[in-house]
Amino acid sequence: MADKLIIFDTTLRDGEQSPGASMTKDEKLRIARQLERLRVDVIEAGFPASSNGDFDAVAAIAGAIKESTVCGLSRANDRDISRAAEALKGAASSRIHTFIATSPLHMEKKLRMTPDEVFEQARVAVRFARNLVSDVEFSPEDGYRSDVDFLCRVLEAVINEGATTINVPDTVGYAVPELYGNFIRTLRERIPNSDKAVWSVHCHNDLGMAVANSLAGVKIGGARQVECTINGLGERAGNCSLEEIVMAVKTRKDYFGLELGIDTRHIVAASRMVSQTTGFVVQPNKAVVGANAFAHASGIHQDGVLKARDTYEIMRAEDVGWSANKIVLGKLSGRNAFKQRLQELGVAMESEADINAAFARFKELADRKSEIFDEDILALVSDEEHSHVAEQFGFVSLMQHSETGERPHARIVFTVDGKEVTSESDGNGPVDASLKAIEAQVKSGAEMVLYSVNAISGSTESQGEVTVRLQNAGRVVNGVGADPDIVVASAKAYLSALNKLQSQAERVAAQG
Amino acid sequence: MADKLIIFDTTLRDGEQSPGASMTKDEKLRIARQLERLRVDVIEAGFPASSNGDFDAVAAIAGAIKESTVCGLSRANDRDISRAAEALKGAASSRIHTFIATSPLHMEKKLRMTPDEVFEQARVAVRFARNLVSDVEFSPEDGYRSDVDFLCRVLEAVINEGATTINVPDTVGYAVPELYGNFIRTLRERIPNSDKAVWSVHCHNDLGMAVANSLAGVKIGGARQVECTINGLGERAGNCSLEEIVMAVKTRKDYFGLELGIDTRHIVAASRMVSQTTGFVVQPNKAVVGANAFAHASGIHQDGVLKARDTYEIMRAEDVGWSANKIVLGKLSGRNAFKQRLQELGVAMESEADINAAFARFKELADRKSEIFDEDILALVSDEEHSHVAEQFGFVSLMQHSETGERPHARIVFTVDGKEVTSESDGNGPVDASLKAIEAQVKSGAEMVLYSVNAISGSTESQGEVTVRLQNAGRVVNGVGADPDIVVASAKAYLSALNKLQSQAERVAAQG
Repeated sequence: MADKLIIFDTTLRDGEQSPGASMTKDEKLRIARQLERLRVDVIEAGFPASSNGDFDAVAAIAGAIKESTVCGLSRANDRDISRAAEALKGAASSRIHTFIATSPLHMEKKLRMTPDEVFEQARVAVRFARNLVSDVEFSPEDGYRSDVDFLCRVLEAVINEGATTINVPDTVGYAVPELYGNFIRTLRERIPNSDKAVWSVHCHNDLGMAVANSLAGVKIGGARQVECTINGLGERAGNCSLEEIVMAVKTRKDYFGLELGIDTRHIVAASRMVSQTTGFVVQPNKAVVGANAFAHASGIHQDGVLKARDTYEIMRAEDVGWSANKIVLGKLSGRNAFKQRLQELGVAMESEADINAAFARFKELADRKSEIFDEDILALVSDEEHSHVAEQFGFVSLMQHSETGERPHARIVFTVDGKEVTSESDGNGPVDASLKAIEAQVKSGAEMVLYSVNAISGSTESQGEVTVRLQNAGRVVNGVGADPDIVVASAKAYLSALNKLQSQAERVAAQG
Repeated sequence: MADKLIIFDTTLRDGEQSPGASMTKDEKLRIARQLERLRVDVIEAGFPASSNGDFDAVAAIAGAIKESTVCGLSRANDRDISRAAEALKGAASSRIHTFIATSPLHMEKKLRMTPDEVFEQARVAVRFARNLVSDVEFSPEDGYRSDVDFLCRVLEAVINEGATTINVPDTVGYAVPELYGNFIRTLRERIPNSDKAVWSVHCHNDLGMAVANSLAGVKIGGARQVECTINGLGERAGNCSLEEIVMAVKTRKDYFGLELGIDTRHIVAASRMVSQTTGFVVQPNKAVVGANAFAHASGIHQDGVLKARDTYEIMRAEDVGWSANKIVLGKLSGRNAFKQRLQELGVAMESEADINAAFARFKELADRKSEIFDEDILALVSDEEHSHVAEQFGFVSLMQHSETGERPHARIVFTVDGKEVTSESDGNGPVDASLKAIEAQVKSGAEMVLYSVNAISGSTESQGEVTVRLQNAGRVVNGVGADPDIVVASAKAYLSALNKLQSQAERVAAQG
């Protein structure tokens, strides 16, 4: 086998940890299936000990995923590791990823432990984990800012205890490529048993260099695993982007000389799924997955000379899943065509009843729209999936009116625990009036920290998708709603966020 | 003087060249003023020979900017260079930037010229430019994919002709840091008169490495100018981000050892101004300027342990212009407070009449909103500035209604060349109905390629800002509209785009 680079996706763990990006079990499962379709080598599915919800999500993913290794994060203690092992027990291939901070700042300020205590805890944790599973990854949190002598001592010890992967995080995104690459090389050279483990890089993008740092860790340092997320999702400026690292290694194979297991044709669908689920938009000038990343895929034909493609493009849009013709279904499409398209889009529905419900909504939409785009289908299904969870609030109907010189007004009917209530309000605009009408009944007291609209297919004829992010008592949730009427989509998104606010449990913070 | 890195901003040239990012003269002027406030060393203001509109914009910027060098792009021919010199003649400090492609692919497919012809044209062009201005930059387009012997020959010749800056573009974003840094070093080592010019890097972000490549050009290659754009705006995946390169050099001064002239406190305002003007959103996990880039500035307080700031943050949010308290003005604020805030936000209004008009709208908004945020003011002023151009279409009033089970309906009144017209339509949603009502009268035939909503202050109480991108007969324009009523904002944005579609002239394509 040629020299292979392992792609370790942590969208569902480090990505999800980003404030506002938390996902439900169904959402995580759906993304995990798309990651499997991408042929990601390792899927970090969550942090089972952090909450019962995350434990359930990891267990569900472990049960569903066959082609990728499923990994669970745990702090370096017996309880966390046991929970991770329990959550992973249904997996075809499982890994426990345990971590403890090793930088002076983190040991002192966060852990309040001495280096010797940290050393001992790391060693004992890896030993404990190896008794439960054979594939154990260890991360020294804030590793890049750690004392190199101490780090060598810790890493040698955990490899002796059986850690099979050693991951060196640049937790705060402080590294530059040359120094980070050399740092990994130094560790590998100085640690006598370093060849017993696969070395891994985990970089954050605070200075815009997560991809280049990761690749320096691979090229200079000899790492053979990269930890990354779809769209670079993650805390602050996010993690290394899966799509960028994969396309860089592939496009510059002349330089890196590495094989990848990834099926790149599913990249764009994965990007959209993550963006729609979390409400984190992808900017048009984002590499690989941005709407403008490929000139000819942006739907815009430039004036002046139409340039020869290879003059300006180093990758092919088709290779990452941009398709030229995005109109796939219309009013006359049947249930089978719909079902097949769902499969192609990476949407796995749990039951025939779910497919039937989604198909009914598809037909309803087709009555109002002549062309149904992939994005419409994803929006429709995304909306559908939200109704899986037993929900306290449900949308019934909305009437709204605005006229220059008058105060916009809305009347909404929605269900609270199955019972219909009607509420009215005015507001600064029709959306504001609709949400105020909901709030007048529900009195959640939640603060709105984000309101965003994604016009899914670029025209106002298409479905509008709205994300509402609410914060209450230290919890942050996203609600998403889709409808061709942007005011209705907003009301649905608000109700969806309220539902999540009710159900989401408190969580333990994990590493960055 | 310590070793200084020159920041060359090309937001108004290479950034504006991005499909859909074209700006009016007033918009370019406003951004140029913000770049001057940032203390950018060189502002590439446009490509004067490409259109009369861009000539006027460069001339206006040359006349207004005192602290930064103003640069104009030109192909390597007398006509382009003369036009650039003419546009720049009012500048306190000016530079002509001339370019010609040197890669085999571009010479053959785009220019249809032999290497000897390209060599000669480059030499003659630089000589011609040096007779007009003393500060001349030369770029071999697609330089990184050029034959190194040929490139050395061209660059030595143009330095002999008096080129003061040599810029080496990675036009297609193909480079990796180590190779790009070595490439610049090789050129500088092999070209005998290389010390007579400042070396510059210009990287694109197709593989997510524009910042790291630029910095390798600086660190390994010895370049002392970086070409970059606000938000990394630019064709495809965009250019190197100004905010990332600046904060990387500043944060890792221990490694780079370079001085910068930039006043980083104006970065966030510049980012918003560019995003709002072009309609290119900034993703929340964008480094430095994304809403989540600084955990504590995102308005979200994490549950669990509130971590010590230096444990996770390597930069201070205040240093790049994120301010904790963003509520600045309210109903009781006077004209002076408003005017002062405009200045702090980098908005320079041309006349007292403009300030009065903006203030009147501010008071009108304050009647409907209790708290006015910086973003509201920027939106309001941005809207105001659009009315500078003599406009064919103007918004008057709107009435719209939607109700579950019925077709949404809108009636709009707007002016066409000063005369009021009324039009009605239904549509898939109230926004769609409103825009269809406009189109029913105007019959522009334009295709909508983007519809996006930026909820400016995170809540639906605030102004909604809508961007509409229209394409017609090969031209692409953005219209922006702001209003607390999202439907009204959409109608304003559509009318604004129609106005631009009427006025924008055809353009010549420049280098990437």
